[in-house]
Amino acid sequence: MGQAEARTIAPARGAAIRAEPARSLGARIGRGELKAAEVAEAFLARIAEAEPEVHAFAWHDPTFVRHQAAELDRYRASGRPVGRLHGVPVALKDIIDTARIPTTNGTPLDAGRVPDKDAWIVARLKAEGALILGKTVTTELAYLHPGPTANPAAPGHTPGGSSSGSAAAVAAGMAPLAIGTQTGGSVIRPASFCGVAGFKPSFGAIPRTGILRQSGTLDTVGVFARDAEDCALLADALFGHDPADPATTPAPAPRLYEAACSPPPVTPTLAFVEMPGWASAHEDTRGAFAELVALLGEQCWETPLPRIYDEAAALRERINFAEMAHAYHRYDRADADLSPEIRAALDAGRAVTAKDYLAALDWQRVLRAGIEEILERADAILCPAAPGPAPEGLGSTGSAIFNGLWTWLGLPAITLPLLQSQAGLPIGVQLVGRPGDDARLLRTAAWLDTTLAQPEAETP
Amino acid sequence: MGQAEARTIAPARGAAIRAEPARSLGARIGRGELKAAEVAEAFLARIAEAEPEVHAFAWHDPTFVRHQAAELDRYRASGRPVGRLHGVPVALKDIIDTARIPTTNGTPLDAGRVPDKDAWIVARLKAEGALILGKTVTTELAYLHPGPTANPAAPGHTPGGSSSGSAAAVAAGMAPLAIGTQTGGSVIRPASFCGVAGFKPSFGAIPRTGILRQSGTLDTVGVFARDAEDCALLADALFGHDPADPATTPAPAPRLYEAACSPPPVTPTLAFVEMPGWASAHEDTRGAFAELVALLGEQCWETPLPRIYDEAAALRERINFAEMAHAYHRYDRADADLSPEIRAALDAGRAVTAKDYLAALDWQRVLRAGIEEILERADAILCPAAPGPAPEGLGSTGSAIFNGLWTWLGLPAITLPLLQSQAGLPIGVQLVGRPGDDARLLRTAAWLDTTLAQPEAETP
Repeated sequence: MGQAEARTIAPARGAAIRAEPARSLGARIGRGELKAAEVAEAFLARIAEAEPEVHAFAWHDPTFVRHQAAELDRYRASGRPVGRLHGVPVALKDIIDTARIPTTNGTPLDAGRVPDKDAWIVARLKAEGALILGKTVTTELAYLHPGPTANPAAPGHTPGGSSSGSAAAVAAGMAPLAIGTQTGGSVIRPASFCGVAGFKPSFGAIPRTGILRQSGTLDTVGVFARDAEDCALLADALFGHDPADPATTPAPAPRLYEAACSPPPVTPTLAFVEMPGWASAHEDTRGAFAELVALLGEQCWETPLPRIYDEAAALRERINFAEMAHAYHRYDRADADLSPEIRAALDAGRAVTAKDYLAALDWQRVLRAGIEEILERADAILCPAAPGPAPEGLGSTGSAIFNGLWTWLGLPAITLPLLQSQAGLPIGVQLVGRPGDDARLLRTAAWLDTTLAQPEAETP
Repeated sequence: MGQAEARTIAPARGAAIRAEPARSLGARIGRGELKAAEVAEAFLARIAEAEPEVHAFAWHDPTFVRHQAAELDRYRASGRPVGRLHGVPVALKDIIDTARIPTTNGTPLDAGRVPDKDAWIVARLKAEGALILGKTVTTELAYLHPGPTANPAAPGHTPGGSSSGSAAAVAAGMAPLAIGTQTGGSVIRPASFCGVAGFKPSFGAIPRTGILRQSGTLDTVGVFARDAEDCALLADALFGHDPADPATTPAPAPRLYEAACSPPPVTPTLAFVEMPGWASAHEDTRGAFAELVALLGEQCWETPLPRIYDEAAALRERINFAEMAHAYHRYDRADADLSPEIRAALDAGRAVTAKDYLAALDWQRVLRAGIEEILERADAILCPAAPGPAPEGLGSTGSAIFNGLWTWLGLPAITLPLLQSQAGLPIGVQLVGRPGDDARLLRTAAWLDTTLAQPEAETP
C-alpha cells in the first residue's frame, strides 16, 4: 500500500463518508456531488487502519480499487446515466468467482485458483457500476472451520461464519455493503454476531452461477449492510433469472429498494415464534426478546411451533451433508488438506442413502405449509438471529439453530442489530417473511427499525 | 353383460365404426352424424368378443360405458359446443386414479382400492367429453412383473409392459385410444410389440398428479392409438400445467393435433442412431432398419453415439431404483405380496447412496447436450422401438434398452407400427424429437407414415 499515503483522505472527511448509508453515497455520486474516488479513499483508509486487526479480506488490492473508482468517475463524467450502486464499494465472499482475481473458497486446496469468468452476480454488479472492494474471508468451503477473521463488535469473540469476512468488513466500517451466502445460517448468524444487518432472500431469488456449490437445495446468496434499506439497495441489483441456475425463475423485478423505503400501508403484525432450541438460548437473548415482545404490544403475538419442527434441523443437515458429499467430491480425498469438521460432514454425507435423502426432501413441503399458515396471520415471523451474542473465542463460528429452518424452507429472512447483551455485545432480531415476498419483509424490517428508534412513548 | 345383447350393434356397422380413426369418430359425433352410444356399442361388442382372450382390462363395466355415452349424447343434443374427444372412448392404465372406480396399481396390496379423486388427466378427459372405457392391466406397480394380458398381434408373445393392457386394448380394436405411462420403456415398447402407435411426450408435458409415482425424475404419461394423428388428438387434450406436479410449467398449448395433420414445410431429415444394444438387436430388426434407411435415402443420415452413452442405462436404472425405493416405501415390507422382480429393484434402490444418486442426476445434462447436437441437424432421431418383435411367452415384458435413454433425457418419442419381422410380428419405428418440440415430432411421424405408405417409386 505504498502509494496509499499520497492519496490519503482527511480523516474527518473519510469518517463522514463512511457514516453515510450506501444509498446516500450512490445517490450523491449519481448527482455528481461526490466522486467514486473519494468514497474509495474513505474505505481504503479504514481498511488500512482496521484490516491488520480484523482480517476480513482474503484478497484486497488498493490499486485495483483506485483503478475502478477512476474508471467509474470517468464514466459518470461522460454524462451517461448511472445506477444506484455506481461507485458504491461492495466486498465479496471468497467463494464467489471473480475473473482474474483469486477465489480460493477458504481452502488451501484451491490456493492459487483464479477463475476466468465472473459469477453471475459479479457481472451484474459490474454492470451496475458497483466498486469491487475485494474478496472476504470465508470458513473452509463455506462450512464450519473458521478463517482468521475477528469480530469488530466483540473482540475475542467469533464473527460467526461462514460469511465471516463479509460481516466483519461491514461491522468494521471497511465496506458499506458485502455479499455472502447461507446454506445453514451463514449470513444471518455472522450479521447478528457482528452487529450489522444481514438479508437472506427467498431461495432462488439470486442466481448462484459461478459460486461454490455446497448444497443446491439450500445454498442462498445474501447481503450485508448497516440497515434494511441498504440491504434492499444491494439485493435489488442481484435478484434475477439465470437459466444456468435451475432454482431461479423468470419473474418481474421485485422493486425491493422502493418497498424498503416506503412506510407499510397498515401497521405490521409480527408472530413471535419460539423455535426449537429456544429453551437453551442465552439468557440475555431470552430477556431481550421478552422486552421486545412486550414493547411491541398488540403488534406482536406469540405462537408455538408444532413438535415436528424439532426434526427439521436433522433433516436439513441430512440434505446438506448428502449434497455436500456430492458437490465436494473433488476435494474429498484421504490425503487432502481438510479440517476435521468438514471431514466429518463428508463422512456423514457419503453414508446417507438416496432413499433417506429423498424422504428428507419431502418434508420441506410439510414444514413450509405450517409456517405459511402462521404467515397468513402475520407480516413476518419474529425470532432471534442466533441463540445468543457471539460466543467467546475464534475456534467455533457458533450455532445456526435459528437459521437452518428458514434456509431450508426457502423463506426470506433478515436480521437487524437492534438488541444487546448485558456485556454490550450485539444480538440480532430476525424477521422471516413469506417466500417470494422479500419486498414486504424488507419494508416490515425498516418499519421495525424506525419504530424501535422512536422514544418508547410513541410505540403502540 | 346381460343387457348387452338387447343393444347389440350390427356386426358390419360396429366394424366400420372401429375402423375409423378416433379423430373421425370425434368429428362425426361433434357434427351429429354419429351418436356416442353407437360408438360405445361398437367397442363394447369388440370387448365382449376379444377380452376373454386378451385380458386387457383390469376393470370394465358396460353399464358404466353406456351411461356415459347416453349422457354425452344428451349433452350434444342440447346444442352446447363439444370438444374433439366428445364421445370418443379412452382406456386408462390402472395406475391412473379414477374417482369411485377401482385403481389397484397392478398389485394385490392395493386390491379393493377406490380413489375418491380423479387424476388430473382424468378430470381433463371428462371435461373434454371423452368416454372412459375402463382401466387397463398394468404390470405390478408399473414395473416388470407381468399381468395376464396377451398380445393380440402376436399370440403367445408378450404384449410388453408396463402399459400392457393399454397397448393390447388398442391393438385388439377394443379401444381407439388409451393412456399409459413410461418410466423406462413402458409406452413405446408395448406399442411396438402390439403393433400400434405409442407417443411418450416431453418430460413434464402432461401432469402426473393422481398417478402412481414410481420415479419423479422419469415417470411420463403417454398415449396409444393407431397412428400419429390420433396420438396427437389425445395428447393435445392432456398437455397442461398443474402446480401440484413440479415437472410441469405454464406454457402455451402446443396445438399438437393441428401440427400432426399438417404437412412439414420442408421434407424432414432423420438421423439414424445406432443406440447401445444395437449390435445385439434381433436380426429382423437390423435388416428392416437397413432397408428403411436405404429407402429414405437422402432424408436419412447415420450417426454414432459416443461411448459415454453406454453408461446411460445403468445411470438411469440407478435413479429409477433409488426413487422407487423412496416412492414405494409403503409397499416395501418383508411380508408383503411382492414379486421377486420388484423386490430386487427395491433392494437395489435402498442400497443407492445419495451421493451416487446425485452424481447420476448430473449426467442428464451431459447426455442431453450430445443428443441435442444431433437434433440440431435433423428433425428427429430414428431408431428401433425395441430390440426385436415381441419375445415369446408371457413371463417377461421384453427389453426397454432402446427407450430408457429418451425417457431419462425427457425427449419426446413416438413409435409407429411400420415394419414386420419375417414371421409377421410388428416391429416399431421410433422417432425421437427435441425436448418441448412434441408438435414437430408428431408432424414428422405423420409424414414418415404417409411417405412409407406411398408406392416406392414416389419415395425420394
